[in-house]
Amino acid sequence: MSPQIVKPTILINVEQAKRNIQRMVEKARGQGIRFRPHFKTHQSAAIGEWFRQAGVTAITVSSLEMAQYFARHGWDDITIAFPANLRQVRGFDELARSLHLGLLVESIETVEYLANHLTAAMDVWIEIDDGTNRSGVRWDCPEKVSELVKILQSHSHLRTVGLLTHAGRIYRAGSPAEIKRIYHETVERMIMVRQFLTGQGYALDISVGDTPGCTLCADLGPVDEIRPGNFVLYDAMQLIMGVCKTNDIAAIVACPVVAIYPERGEVVIYGGAVHLSKDTVKVIDQNVYGLVATVKGMKRSQPDHPRISLVNGGYVTRLTQEHGVVALPEPALRRLKVGDLLYLIPAHVCLTVSALGEYCSMSGEIINTMNVEL
Amino acid sequence: MSPQIVKPTILINVEQAKRNIQRMVEKARGQGIRFRPHFKTHQSAAIGEWFRQAGVTAITVSSLEMAQYFARHGWDDITIAFPANLRQVRGFDELARSLHLGLLVESIETVEYLANHLTAAMDVWIEIDDGTNRSGVRWDCPEKVSELVKILQSHSHLRTVGLLTHAGRIYRAGSPAEIKRIYHETVERMIMVRQFLTGQGYALDISVGDTPGCTLCADLGPVDEIRPGNFVLYDAMQLIMGVCKTNDIAAIVACPVVAIYPERGEVVIYGGAVHLSKDTVKVIDQNVYGLVATVKGMKRSQPDHPRISLVNGGYVTRLTQEHGVVALPEPALRRLKVGDLLYLIPAHVCLTVSALGEYCSMSGEIINTMNVEL
Repeated sequence: MSPQIVKPTILINVEQAKRNIQRMVEKARGQGIRFRPHFKTHQSAAIGEWFRQAGVTAITVSSLEMAQYFARHGWDDITIAFPANLRQVRGFDELARSLHLGLLVESIETVEYLANHLTAAMDVWIEIDDGTNRSGVRWDCPEKVSELVKILQSHSHLRTVGLLTHAGRIYRAGSPAEIKRIYHETVERMIMVRQFLTGQGYALDISVGDTPGCTLCADLGPVDEIRPGNFVLYDAMQLIMGVCKTNDIAAIVACPVVAIYPERGEVVIYGGAVHLSKDTVKVIDQNVYGLVATVKGMKRSQPDHPRISLVNGGYVTRLTQEHGVVALPEPALRRLKVGDLLYLIPAHVCLTVSALGEYCSMSGEIINTMNVEL
Repeated sequence: MSPQIVKPTILINVEQAKRNIQRMVEKARGQGIRFRPHFKTHQSAAIGEWFRQAGVTAITVSSLEMAQYFARHGWDDITIAFPANLRQVRGFDELARSLHLGLLVESIETVEYLANHLTAAMDVWIEIDDGTNRSGVRWDCPEKVSELVKILQSHSHLRTVGLLTHAGRIYRAGSPAEIKRIYHETVERMIMVRQFLTGQGYALDISVGDTPGCTLCADLGPVDEIRPGNFVLYDAMQLIMGVCKTNDIAAIVACPVVAIYPERGEVVIYGGAVHLSKDTVKVIDQNVYGLVATVKGMKRSQPDHPRISLVNGGYVTRLTQEHGVVALPEPALRRLKVGDLLYLIPAHVCLTVSALGEYCSMSGEIINTMNVEL
């Protein structure tokens, strides 16, 4: 297949992605927790079908456009896990007329605007900031949450279903132990908010869940729903944080080598910021855009058992619009020729998927995302 | 127009972009230098027409796909300013049969491969590394350049036309004076290489040109061709470097405000890494993804005279996939409501254009890029 790859291409290991899905489905099921995977990582209707085959019926997305895309592909229970964008109320209303839609709110202004401008019935989650400092009502201000719930109660088309958080701060963890500690701390903080509201007579669900916490914690705690997304593919960030192993990674990026500089210990690839994205992962003391890997066993005859190995010291160190500069030690560099493919584990695969817009399976089949269909 | 904007949107000031084009056209023409603007910044056939109206007939692109796109839109003199990707020789050959195509080479391996696999006639530029350390033959190794020229001479379909460089290192300059110094140093280095080759009986053109150098240097030096690209729009990087003024900037990004945190001095916008890209610009001691601006005079009745002002202390400080976190001082923050639009000057507009795939003119007209047509 490799001669067919002429430009930066995401290669997806279908069987590994399916194994990653199955593992998370079973973990949630085993603990009686609803599984609402985040589809912003893969952004693909075809990959969505693998989740459906594993029994998934409810999903999370990060924008109205993504909700509309998956609705067109038959999904009818969708939470848009992003603070409700008031400029898109008409789109929310239209979508909620044909499926079960969930929105996030975190301010009185938003709740009042939605109450006055939406007509269709939909679920509303109150977004809690677990300490990440991105969006949501701070977990230590439960009285503010209570205020929102009170207003929502007077609008019967907005069903207050629960408290939702994304523990983005987990990505600042330095070790798997710290990931677990943060995951459980976030769950505790959510439970404290819920207890405050229970005391006021409100019954609310808790939705949490990121890939590091949901992968590493054996016990996901007393939550009602988890929403991890990245785990279907994993990436360099998850690998470096100790969340996954190389063979859990289901997506690598193949990039043509266009120039080789033995004296600099570097090669230049066709693969830049518009392909990989400029997100980084810290390796030792350096922020890099991707890790170099070798892939063995990638054959048409046996397409689903590639073995990925990291090339020690192989990092994407600089990216401009279309160029990637890759540091490579001898003898990896000596083995390369101009025109060869270099395999990379991207720092943050969600952004790489969004940038490249399609995958190629190990057996050469193209798998589209919403960026290609739109 | 602003009620129509529901998601992150690049607003383009058509008249300012045309003024930016006209200014660069006149500068090149006044010095008898060929102008081959880089179209990787705007990536749009419609914007390409504004260049054509200003008399431009030859262009630079950064990929075969971009060359094919502009060829479909009537451009017939195109240099692909990226080290020739050997995996795309068939595409180069097809394109060169119908138009005047230029490629970059920088190694014996590439030259020999192209000589053996291409059949159509095309221009070949030898890429010189002016000290940027990205791609090209080092400027202080002219004998290597000479080797490449010798091999090329024996293949009549590959016309060796000149020496080409991109002084990417100019973006490390700390002041306008340093930008000018680096620009002229790069030109001198190119002339040294050319002199070496003239001594061997070869006549070669010199192609240089980046937006900082071509904007700031009154005298562009004894070069044959310039290839700046960013200048059509300009961005926060150019502004912070002192290359342009706020009113030279022809593209800003409007993003809906979805949450406001007065106690943090921050707002959250719908506008993340997949919209703005994660490229940064250094402001004082902080790397930021964009600058907050106010735009006055953006009316349908008088659409082309918006006045952009920076909001002091307004920066996009964090980006996740769809969220942007923006630091905003009082009183700018106090004036905002959830649902308002926030205007940003992106750090690196080329990447933002590539991510968003379309523009909206100040009078509400949609302008597509290749990402939408593909």
